[in-house]
Amino acid sequence: MLVFWRAFLVSAVFASSVLARPHARLRHPKKWAKKLAHLEVLAESEDSQTPVEFSTTAKAPKENIFISLTDDEAAAVISFLHKQPALNLTATANATAWDNAIEVIDLVQPNKTDALAFLDHNEPAPPRYALARIAFGATQHPYLQDFIVGPLPITNASTYASLDWQTTSGSSKIRNFNPDDDLVTEWNLKVTKTVADIVLDLLNGTVTGSDDDDFDIFGIDPLWQEEIDGKQRTILWNTYWRFPSGDAAIFDGETLLPQGLFFKSDITGRDSSKWKVLGWLYGGIFYETTAKFRKAWKSEGFVKYELNMPSAWIGTDRTGDALPADTLSPPVAVQPSGRRFAVDEAQKYVEWMDFSFYFTFTRDTGLRLFDIKYRGERIIYELGLQEAIAHYAGNDPVQSGTSYMDTFYGFGPYAFELAPGFDCPTYATYLNSTFHAAELSTTHRNNICLFESDPGYLMQRHTTSAYLAVTKNVVFTMRSVSTVGNYDYNFDYNFMLDGTIEIVVRASGYIQSAYYAKNDEYGYRIHDGLSGSMHDHALNWKVDMDILGTKNTFVKHKVVPVQVKYPWSNHTRSTMKVERVRVENENEGKLNWPANGGAMFIVENSDELNKYGEPRGYKIAPSRGGAGMYLTIQESSNLLKSQGFATHGLYVSKQKDTEVRASHANNDYDPGHPIIDFDKYFDGESINQTDIVLWVNLGMHHVPHTGDLPNTVFTSAQAAFLITPHNYFLHDTSRVTRQMLRIDYNSSGVQLVNQFGANQPDGMVNLTALQNNYHDYEGDVAVRKFPYDPLHPFNNTESIV
Amino acid sequence: MLVFWRAFLVSAVFASSVLARPHARLRHPKKWAKKLAHLEVLAESEDSQTPVEFSTTAKAPKENIFISLTDDEAAAVISFLHKQPALNLTATANATAWDNAIEVIDLVQPNKTDALAFLDHNEPAPPRYALARIAFGATQHPYLQDFIVGPLPITNASTYASLDWQTTSGSSKIRNFNPDDDLVTEWNLKVTKTVADIVLDLLNGTVTGSDDDDFDIFGIDPLWQEEIDGKQRTILWNTYWRFPSGDAAIFDGETLLPQGLFFKSDITGRDSSKWKVLGWLYGGIFYETTAKFRKAWKSEGFVKYELNMPSAWIGTDRTGDALPADTLSPPVAVQPSGRRFAVDEAQKYVEWMDFSFYFTFTRDTGLRLFDIKYRGERIIYELGLQEAIAHYAGNDPVQSGTSYMDTFYGFGPYAFELAPGFDCPTYATYLNSTFHAAELSTTHRNNICLFESDPGYLMQRHTTSAYLAVTKNVVFTMRSVSTVGNYDYNFDYNFMLDGTIEIVVRASGYIQSAYYAKNDEYGYRIHDGLSGSMHDHALNWKVDMDILGTKNTFVKHKVVPVQVKYPWSNHTRSTMKVERVRVENENEGKLNWPANGGAMFIVENSDELNKYGEPRGYKIAPSRGGAGMYLTIQESSNLLKSQGFATHGLYVSKQKDTEVRASHANNDYDPGHPIIDFDKYFDGESINQTDIVLWVNLGMHHVPHTGDLPNTVFTSAQAAFLITPHNYFLHDTSRVTRQMLRIDYNSSGVQLVNQFGANQPDGMVNLTALQNNYHDYEGDVAVRKFPYDPLHPFNNTESIV
Repeated sequence: MLVFWRAFLVSAVFASSVLARPHARLRHPKKWAKKLAHLEVLAESEDSQTPVEFSTTAKAPKENIFISLTDDEAAAVISFLHKQPALNLTATANATAWDNAIEVIDLVQPNKTDALAFLDHNEPAPPRYALARIAFGATQHPYLQDFIVGPLPITNASTYASLDWQTTSGSSKIRNFNPDDDLVTEWNLKVTKTVADIVLDLLNGTVTGSDDDDFDIFGIDPLWQEEIDGKQRTILWNTYWRFPSGDAAIFDGETLLPQGLFFKSDITGRDSSKWKVLGWLYGGIFYETTAKFRKAWKSEGFVKYELNMPSAWIGTDRTGDALPADTLSPPVAVQPSGRRFAVDEAQKYVEWMDFSFYFTFTRDTGLRLFDIKYRGERIIYELGLQEAIAHYAGNDPVQSGTSYMDTFYGFGPYAFELAPGFDCPTYATYLNSTFHAAELSTTHRNNICLFESDPGYLMQRHTTSAYLAVTKNVVFTMRSVSTVGNYDYNFDYNFMLDGTIEIVVRASGYIQSAYYAKNDEYGYRIHDGLSGSMHDHALNWKVDMDILGTKNTFVKHKVVPVQVKYPWSNHTRSTMKVERVRVENENEGKLNWPANGGAMFIVENSDELNKYGEPRGYKIAPSRGGAGMYLTIQESSNLLKSQGFATHGLYVSKQKDTEVRASHANNDYDPGHPIIDFDKYFDGESINQTDIVLWVNLGMHHVPHTGDLPNTVFTSAQAAFLITPHNYFLHDTSRVTRQMLRIDYNSSGVQLVNQFGANQPDGMVNLTALQNNYHDYEGDVAVRKFPYDPLHPFNNTESIV
Repeated sequence: MLVFWRAFLVSAVFASSVLARPHARLRHPKKWAKKLAHLEVLAESEDSQTPVEFSTTAKAPKENIFISLTDDEAAAVISFLHKQPALNLTATANATAWDNAIEVIDLVQPNKTDALAFLDHNEPAPPRYALARIAFGATQHPYLQDFIVGPLPITNASTYASLDWQTTSGSSKIRNFNPDDDLVTEWNLKVTKTVADIVLDLLNGTVTGSDDDDFDIFGIDPLWQEEIDGKQRTILWNTYWRFPSGDAAIFDGETLLPQGLFFKSDITGRDSSKWKVLGWLYGGIFYETTAKFRKAWKSEGFVKYELNMPSAWIGTDRTGDALPADTLSPPVAVQPSGRRFAVDEAQKYVEWMDFSFYFTFTRDTGLRLFDIKYRGERIIYELGLQEAIAHYAGNDPVQSGTSYMDTFYGFGPYAFELAPGFDCPTYATYLNSTFHAAELSTTHRNNICLFESDPGYLMQRHTTSAYLAVTKNVVFTMRSVSTVGNYDYNFDYNFMLDGTIEIVVRASGYIQSAYYAKNDEYGYRIHDGLSGSMHDHALNWKVDMDILGTKNTFVKHKVVPVQVKYPWSNHTRSTMKVERVRVENENEGKLNWPANGGAMFIVENSDELNKYGEPRGYKIAPSRGGAGMYLTIQESSNLLKSQGFATHGLYVSKQKDTEVRASHANNDYDPGHPIIDFDKYFDGESINQTDIVLWVNLGMHHVPHTGDLPNTVFTSAQAAFLITPHNYFLHDTSRVTRQMLRIDYNSSGVQLVNQFGANQPDGMVNLTALQNNYHDYEGDVAVRKFPYDPLHPFNNTESIV
């Protein structure tokens, strides 16, 4: 489905499209019910707890300078841009592929220098600037370009300029080799018409552009640039995907239905009359022309391969004999005393126990966290996803040629409403998020959830013959889920009572599969005519750590075997030591997790020693599943210069306001000449006691097997890393919690029970009142920006692909 | 504390000891309350669920042939052995170090061949045999030996024999170089008396054997065998550990209080008058004699090091300003419809959803699982811990010389009662376990818990513009915790709806630390005069997998980069492939997890292909933290020939009834000449389509930092691996559950809600009724076996060290 959305998104921006044609305004804007107060405590025990002075409403100590643009800000920026003659903009709703139109409006993240001056030194808030991503279609050589617009609010003093200083190419411009989406669709139908009889024979279906088409046609991403006869050509390989039908009609299983016929087109330039078919592939045999393909098909001995057809196997619904006990409710968590964290919803600021942080939401990467403090000290200045690659391989050109870079599609647009009681606990706090694209401001209702939970194991325990001491492990989670086409990415930021922060990603949803013909080396055969197409996931996180200021050092503490003759030993002993190694400069900054976990990776402030002389620091460590995995392919023919952040497990670089992102959402347009080539950040600068940034990968080498049908499951598709205090405090900070128990006992029985003021939950919980009405599910709400029409929001589920 | 327990256990077996002197019988035996029915559902909604035919009581399809010996069986075996003149046994309660006495009675696990004949082919149950571990003290050359006794029940036909065939040494005998525990205690006091003035000066305390001693004296484990002047000598290095006092008196923090003074003794032989002091170590300087040490101490310029003293920092109690919200109860899980799994408590057999298994409990390794079936097919014949090594290093002989092998102490004896609401959910099912040692049968009350829980993330999800489909991830856990001295090991066996089994270990409790003097290379300084002593944990699990029978093959499916020129491509492409490699024989059977997760490890039945021609199998994969970690030291001077199972991440060997365990609990007595040398299992035999066993390590390289004070926390000290279907079924088996939701929607709102018969929980939950009375905590109950006194059990907390 991915190229389908690409087409979709591009057309949404440039041409008359579903997005550009809002549906009837179905309902008046409403304030939708918060799902906070679901729990009803009916009674409290007599010896109830000490009255608590705790407010679930927080007040951010400073305004959130990272917060997304408001609807009004976005509208003002769009209006300002439309007044700039040089940009020659057309309103998105009216724009064709030959117009210039605004694609995305977002915040330009303030420079760290300015942000710290504001956060730490009573300087004024840095001026606010918008990013405008504009697609220039009114030219024979279309391109996209990012602009910075501001300061905000828009006044006569506001200006705009190309946002070049955050690039490695020197320009935020990138060529668009495929601006004419409608022409591509037309071309595909035209080409397939020439072989309609063959398609009917081999694939048992038709595609003519009508509503009852059997097939969708889409192919590689990114497009290839090939030199043919000395000239650079834009190459598109396509294949046929069957639409789910029958029992499977409702299900989004198209990516399970590749049909095994491929064609190669030269789609160079904007004049589709000059486009060419460069060949066909079926059953592993390449035919250079349509005529040769037709001749082979008509010849004796032509091998027809098995069909890959939809039916119930595509569906995710319950199947098989139900398990007897499963009609009963499984255990469910409740929150008997209400929420124990505080939120400033206006400022997007959260306080939980000893943690506080700001957050924001961007079109490209979704949820991002800023200024994460623990016990009043900043630990992380910025934390968030940078990019997600899904790199396929196969014996066919579409699988081999597909390497999605998902920020192209964006994590923001696809971070949908969460289902309470499933995606997050019923008692979670749900927040909305807005992004601005295609001159619409779209709000995802309830698409971020915040909740405490018990992860099912303790923080601490010890028992002796005299006592038992145990401490609960209460975890605070901020979660969002982005369904980028076939795959659902669940992102968790977990905070723990010992000061640990865990970053988790999980993947579910439909795999993109391959047609099964001679491709055993690229995956398993998992259904009739179907192969689970092997692919690598690599997701990169920026972790801008600040340990007691910005002067930090990355050290490796290696555990190494050694032979030592001690003064007290008669023999040389085979034993081990800790070796402390500093990563001195960016040339050494590309790192992999060591074999056998044989080193700890630590960000320390070498000048800030604790009472015992050890540098105070935080450790970065793999936590779950594919932590630290990177791409198998170190020099991908698809990604070219755009995979620099995915060749190692993690990276350390010097922080620069010019090196903000590991990737750019538009790199996909021309991956050989990317706007941001991450590799260029590594130019040998010293990273010893300076401001450093970590770029940490999570991922998975995914060779789908039958268990990935119908959907990949989260249980075996997850990865996480954690950031945990390391000689930072003088003792375990979880000792502050009341959620512990000590029992002193001997053979005569229990002598003392200490519950540390954390009374056990009491009263009655009304589970019926906690039930969700899933008929409340609504999807997104959108507001048109140009002309600005804030009083008429409309439900906007159609943009969800 | 570890040597202290060793002394303790040994003395319990051989001599008048606390264990041998039962306390007053405090209470009449009672039937303690089961904690099953804690939840009260007060009301049900009108449209309540379909009546469910589900019983929480299971009936094991066959008797559990793995089940531990009953009290009566153990008593009969002990009685039988006491009648054997050749053994010359003394009742443990009366035995001295110069007597022969029974140490442990346990089940001899039936041979797999016999077990399968019974389980699968209606053959009679294999005859039952007991293991008797006997310490022979009535000799100048004391030793221990394992005997097999049976068949049971004991009749005239019953016999006993040395249990040699499960050894690699050819004999279950092992020399005991340190049988005279009382003499060692006496010796230590005698030695320290000679330097009492120095100890007072340097360590500010005294030790004379009195109740108000400031210090405990213990040292290396295992003991060293050194050649001195051509003769083999038994070497003991000791150090001084301060008893917690003052604020810290209640806390088990002795292992945080090393005092930095060490002495070396030659304790060869049983005549302690021939024992010698071989030197002293203080501040990194070795003194060959007491006189030299004294002279140095008296000399000018003698450097005295900082004291390491107890106070509140040792304690685990709550400390610091309480967090405002923390008086409120955090979220808590409830089980609104009762338990959804079935247990046959008599047969120790469990059924949950599509899983079933038997379990048992052993003195050496605690909880073990057998015959784990999923959907009626055996997946794992045997699953359980084999051994846990904690290998220390340091610049002092006690840290350098310590490499605990914890089955020596046993995981069974230290698997104590669990605290409901902390160790396991309040609603968990708690079961008892019994082990037989020192002629006592000791029952741990409520030391195994079984429960379902929500791990906080889904099994499956997918969203589109038309629908949302989500499936809950309900996990079933069997848990026990063994506190082997300073460390609390939490063991989880997790079962999941997609057929995945996860094996988890977590560690908390007190670290064993080192005195801080010139040892920066071996750990961090974490307190006054204290270093966090670096150490490696390596815990080995036996996983005897049977995939569709016993003929299985271990394969590696590697993901490798390749350069390919395809028929359809003009250029050579940089891409990747899957390479399938068979592990052909045991010589290739020592494996590490690959860098970058670049291979899947699969146990398949190569003869059992699924419908699509792929061999059906299960994948083994790292899951959390230190999965697959092994010892840094490949040839340990401490462990010698006893670390063979801990040099790699995992192993594959041919299953043999003679190769049952990776280690032997008595290897610690003479690690250079172990009863079982795991390395000898690897002798090049083919493992292609034969019965294979995996031996999988979990572990952690632990360099304790300040955050390990007072206790290591579970959050960063955990490791897990998982076993998950791989092309085994034709689709994801979690599709069978009702715990899913589908919402169909469009811009007009929700069109359909399908809850698949899993109604949301309703009614009222009485949290007050769920509260635990922690005054019920009781610890163990024991029954004396010789003479057998089953009517007078007594509470036995004193054996808990």
